[in-house]
Amino acid sequence: MVNAGVMSGSGNLMDFLDEPFPDVGTYEDFHTIDWLREKSRDTDRHRKITSKSKESIWEFIKSLLDAWSGWVVMLLIGLLAGTLAGVIDLAVDWMTDLKEGVCLSAFWYSHEQCCWTSNETTFEDRDKCPLWQKWSELLVNQSEVGIWAGSWLGTPAIPHIKTILSGFIIRGYLGKWTLLIKTVTLVLVVSSGLSLGKEGPLVHVACCCGNFFSSLFSKYSKNEGKRREVLSAAAAAGVSVAFGAPIGGVLFSLEEVSYYFPLKTLWRSFFAALVAAFTLRSINPFGNSRLVLFYVEYHTPWRRKTTRLGKYPVLEVIVVTAITAIIAYPNPYTRQSTSELISELFNDCGALESSQLCDYINDPNMTRPVDDIPDRPAGVGVYTAMWQLALALIFKIVVTIFTFGMKIPSGLFIPSMAVGAIAGRMVGIGVEQLAYHHHDWIIFRNWCRPGADCVTPGLYAMVGAAACLGGVTRMTVSLVVIMFELTGGLEYIVPLMAAAVTSKWVADAFGKEGIYEAHIHLNGYPFLDVKDEFTHRTLATDVMRPRRGEPPLSVLTQDSMTVEDVETLIKETDYNGFPVVVSRDSERLIGFAQRRELILAIKNARQRQEGIVSNSIMYFTEEPPELPANSPHPLKLRRILNLSPFTVTDHTPMETVVDIFRKLGLRQCLVTRSGRLLGIITKKDVLRHMAQMANQDPESIMFN
Amino acid sequence: MVNAGVMSGSGNLMDFLDEPFPDVGTYEDFHTIDWLREKSRDTDRHRKITSKSKESIWEFIKSLLDAWSGWVVMLLIGLLAGTLAGVIDLAVDWMTDLKEGVCLSAFWYSHEQCCWTSNETTFEDRDKCPLWQKWSELLVNQSEVGIWAGSWLGTPAIPHIKTILSGFIIRGYLGKWTLLIKTVTLVLVVSSGLSLGKEGPLVHVACCCGNFFSSLFSKYSKNEGKRREVLSAAAAAGVSVAFGAPIGGVLFSLEEVSYYFPLKTLWRSFFAALVAAFTLRSINPFGNSRLVLFYVEYHTPWRRKTTRLGKYPVLEVIVVTAITAIIAYPNPYTRQSTSELISELFNDCGALESSQLCDYINDPNMTRPVDDIPDRPAGVGVYTAMWQLALALIFKIVVTIFTFGMKIPSGLFIPSMAVGAIAGRMVGIGVEQLAYHHHDWIIFRNWCRPGADCVTPGLYAMVGAAACLGGVTRMTVSLVVIMFELTGGLEYIVPLMAAAVTSKWVADAFGKEGIYEAHIHLNGYPFLDVKDEFTHRTLATDVMRPRRGEPPLSVLTQDSMTVEDVETLIKETDYNGFPVVVSRDSERLIGFAQRRELILAIKNARQRQEGIVSNSIMYFTEEPPELPANSPHPLKLRRILNLSPFTVTDHTPMETVVDIFRKLGLRQCLVTRSGRLLGIITKKDVLRHMAQMANQDPESIMFN
Repeated sequence: MVNAGVMSGSGNLMDFLDEPFPDVGTYEDFHTIDWLREKSRDTDRHRKITSKSKESIWEFIKSLLDAWSGWVVMLLIGLLAGTLAGVIDLAVDWMTDLKEGVCLSAFWYSHEQCCWTSNETTFEDRDKCPLWQKWSELLVNQSEVGIWAGSWLGTPAIPHIKTILSGFIIRGYLGKWTLLIKTVTLVLVVSSGLSLGKEGPLVHVACCCGNFFSSLFSKYSKNEGKRREVLSAAAAAGVSVAFGAPIGGVLFSLEEVSYYFPLKTLWRSFFAALVAAFTLRSINPFGNSRLVLFYVEYHTPWRRKTTRLGKYPVLEVIVVTAITAIIAYPNPYTRQSTSELISELFNDCGALESSQLCDYINDPNMTRPVDDIPDRPAGVGVYTAMWQLALALIFKIVVTIFTFGMKIPSGLFIPSMAVGAIAGRMVGIGVEQLAYHHHDWIIFRNWCRPGADCVTPGLYAMVGAAACLGGVTRMTVSLVVIMFELTGGLEYIVPLMAAAVTSKWVADAFGKEGIYEAHIHLNGYPFLDVKDEFTHRTLATDVMRPRRGEPPLSVLTQDSMTVEDVETLIKETDYNGFPVVVSRDSERLIGFAQRRELILAIKNARQRQEGIVSNSIMYFTEEPPELPANSPHPLKLRRILNLSPFTVTDHTPMETVVDIFRKLGLRQCLVTRSGRLLGIITKKDVLRHMAQMANQDPESIMFN
Repeated sequence: MVNAGVMSGSGNLMDFLDEPFPDVGTYEDFHTIDWLREKSRDTDRHRKITSKSKESIWEFIKSLLDAWSGWVVMLLIGLLAGTLAGVIDLAVDWMTDLKEGVCLSAFWYSHEQCCWTSNETTFEDRDKCPLWQKWSELLVNQSEVGIWAGSWLGTPAIPHIKTILSGFIIRGYLGKWTLLIKTVTLVLVVSSGLSLGKEGPLVHVACCCGNFFSSLFSKYSKNEGKRREVLSAAAAAGVSVAFGAPIGGVLFSLEEVSYYFPLKTLWRSFFAALVAAFTLRSINPFGNSRLVLFYVEYHTPWRRKTTRLGKYPVLEVIVVTAITAIIAYPNPYTRQSTSELISELFNDCGALESSQLCDYINDPNMTRPVDDIPDRPAGVGVYTAMWQLALALIFKIVVTIFTFGMKIPSGLFIPSMAVGAIAGRMVGIGVEQLAYHHHDWIIFRNWCRPGADCVTPGLYAMVGAAACLGGVTRMTVSLVVIMFELTGGLEYIVPLMAAAVTSKWVADAFGKEGIYEAHIHLNGYPFLDVKDEFTHRTLATDVMRPRRGEPPLSVLTQDSMTVEDVETLIKETDYNGFPVVVSRDSERLIGFAQRRELILAIKNARQRQEGIVSNSIMYFTEEPPELPANSPHPLKLRRILNLSPFTVTDHTPMETVVDIFRKLGLRQCLVTRSGRLLGIITKKDVLRHMAQMANQDPESIMFN
């Protein structure tokens, strides 16, 4: 016993002296991280720094720097994301200022100069020469560039980022090159006039910034869990600069994008979103120091005249078919940029409004001030607008589905809001005219006195936009906050909330998945959605492997396998790790060893530790096993053994298991019965089982 | 074996026929609930209803009703909470309309009538007669009633509700009588002019509504976990009606009050807050259909004249001392109601503003329109206001600390905001005057052109109010949302966010606990805060009981103890439950039995099951143990055995254990090593350990 004690002591000493070999604690591409492990690694690091900080002033300063590095990263992300958003806006403006066209031989030539040098020019078509490329013609190319760049980058960003945040490793998706290319692409795509929201690409850009800055601090670069906290905050900053909606951004990140969102991350996201919004505001790309995108104030005449000629060309240039020519171009509502369209639809009709939508027949006897206009009968313009809007609605729906389905890097917000706003405005005009012509109907009698303005079609458009966006994404709180950050219309909170709740109910009746989750499932990523409820009666024993009839679980024993045995096991299987048991007979679980770390440890020991050969015994206990006299030096592997693997009993309901996987972010979980190891459940097993059960009984999840 | 099989079959049958005895699955007062168990019980219930729903149309309708009952409860809570808030506001208005006083002999008598009948009246003091009680005198009594009622109800509501939501049982705190008394008290307290925010009491009232309505649906009344989901939503509805801030209410419930807040609850809270806000708006107690409490619009003259005579008397009537008479009453800023004070402080000085704070010296040559006023030198009124504000600041700080310390049922929001607003306005006026007199200073040079209005003291007051409230409660996102829902000032989102972040940093440097957590700790409730980080190196083995030297753990064996043995064990200990092991030698864990259910099961069996005597063997296995021929009938208790108790190994870091307790809402967790039971960790052990570690090393949690 004394001897054993000494050996154990020396074993500990050796263990202590052993430097951790490189690459321990990293993950392979397309693998899932283990949240609990990442968290505990961070605590170790933190503890080390705290205990060192008492040694010297320098170490104390270092520990303070480490403690504040989270805020520093947030500051940097906010600054860079805000700056990039500002630069993108400015670049887009500059490019759309090249309205006339460009000279292909020398881009700084004006139209006349360009054609003057051309030989083919005659007097009649002096404006047409092959070297002068007009705006509308160039657009097709620019759009093509956009689409090309888009397809290079693959699918829309938010589902990918959602998957990454849930703990999946996708290398390169948030790299420096992606950041550069994505920024350039975004300028091309937006300036080409493809009517896409910017929130998807900007969230991607912000997350690239977050990834870049977190690589500068070892606290974040070496810990996949901590890095995801930074990325969640970066996503908030992205939405913040896309719409100038900092609070909405934080809530969007919380409600839609993030997976693990502790309160600490909430505060940091808030800070990042704040800095980003502030930076963007300082750059002031739209020159009006207003962050609100579609400022709305009803019953006040807007003195803005909408230029009917589409400043930007519209989405039709992509769909190069007859449909475009016949439907989209002649229709002013599809020719306009989507943002402008939404703005016009939200707009209230003041007396000075020149829009076709405001072509009402004025009462010649009216003596009221201009900003207090009662309901009026619709004029010809409104009726024209109505059928144009109806066509635009169909067109927008088709194009939006098509665009997002084509996997162009796009935001969904603006197109969805446009669809909803068109529908809402149409309903609004309908109700307004109904109220005008039928003041005596019961529904109008109480709140529409004759001559009073009781229906605001612009408000209907706003509510419609919120409802449509809510139906597509299933946001609720973040939707309302984003809507009033977009419109400045804090007064309309009650109708907006009602729209959000109703659209969620209706959409949920068709299926629980929002568009982002649907995309993740299409991509086949292992994403364990927090929103899905699992309510089946299955037990852990039904899901664990090995199933009945399958070969027994591959396990390691604590002190009887040789290096060669383990190497063979590793070669023959592709499991991520192996449970370690006392012996094959008792099957009592003592821990879990990761495949990756086993491989590294053996490789390391073979290279650097003397006396380790193929038939060295590997042991996971504190003391080496008692071996025959001339046996080779044994290999101690306790350092890579996880002594606290997560276990559940075979009788645990799968519902609880799903909950544990979700809340603790596990990668795998061992199944035991009275201490005996029975099997293993991995995250993929859980997902597969959930999919199976959902297919078996699709109704059961409907009404929960 | 065949025989055993048959017995097991019959045993199963008996088990199945056995009706669940009453009270199983309830908790005792001042105990903690087991979230995992509540969740799994709800799933069972749900499954039963789903499978029944296929049997008949009636069952299908019942299942639909059950599925929608959550929304129905939310609707009812919203309606009742909104109505009660409206009624409270109306009642307060009515009571404060009795401005003059009241006749004690007959309350409907006017002042003159009252004194005319009095015999003691002379001509000189015809206005003074003992029967006529003046407003100011009556107030003392009303305040006393308020304080009496307050102390009857004990401590402030939010910390209590926070504790209840974390899974603690406090019976009667949310009962029907509490609802009634609290409502009446609130009317008395608010109308007495105690300058308290309403959010605390209204959250309490809303939670009482939630508790009442959840008792009507078996889905919620029989499940403490589900009930807490309803209560979280009710808390959101309470804040929603306290300030007319539905989104802020939801976020406050999420960030500050709730413990377990799944996304489903977020949506429901949102709905409840919406309905409550809508109901309150329909009642329209303030007669202006505006939900915004302190509407702010800078650079626009407000045409409202503040009545300087305090409409409501102030807090001084409570502190019946000389300090009151000397400081509070002569000072207009402490005499005013706190809400009015905040409103005045937030206010911008338009040309028509009559407030003392706006007593600037106008430039006689000024030709600008009234709503565009440049910076002006301060007049006498402003200087008077400054020292009055300074005194009011000290007074408010003292009174707020005193009030909240005295445990009067009060909100913190309004008093904290008042303190911050006073300080902010003072700083604002200071900066404004500095900018006026020193236009050439570097900090003013860039943004203050001479003659332009570059400092808005009202905005400083708003930011100050946000910062102070943030420092007290440590809210961030919900703070900003509540602030702009209160003020309607969406434009000021960036300064508000900056204030929230800064105040949180500064306050956290003094200590991590917000006021609600501090109160919970003062009350000694077992509250496991999600915000505290645990970063110590301790392991489960250091925390589990029994400690070294303590007697071994009280366990049950699966098939060898008699009814009497168990009854003795129950009598001698007061543990909440007992682990069940295979045998005392092997100590292999098979499950966990709750004390309460053991008692009920034995009582039930002794009364209703034949042949159960004191020396009957109790067994937890499927098959009864092999017993000698003439032994009494054994008692099967498998039904009450939890076959999936939560276990961790003794090497599990306490950090992980704390995480598991927090995220899964456990009540206790068993500690094993390779399947052998070593000890138990309860929620109280975890809390005690965390407190110990925090005391040992207070620095370590500072900079995390």
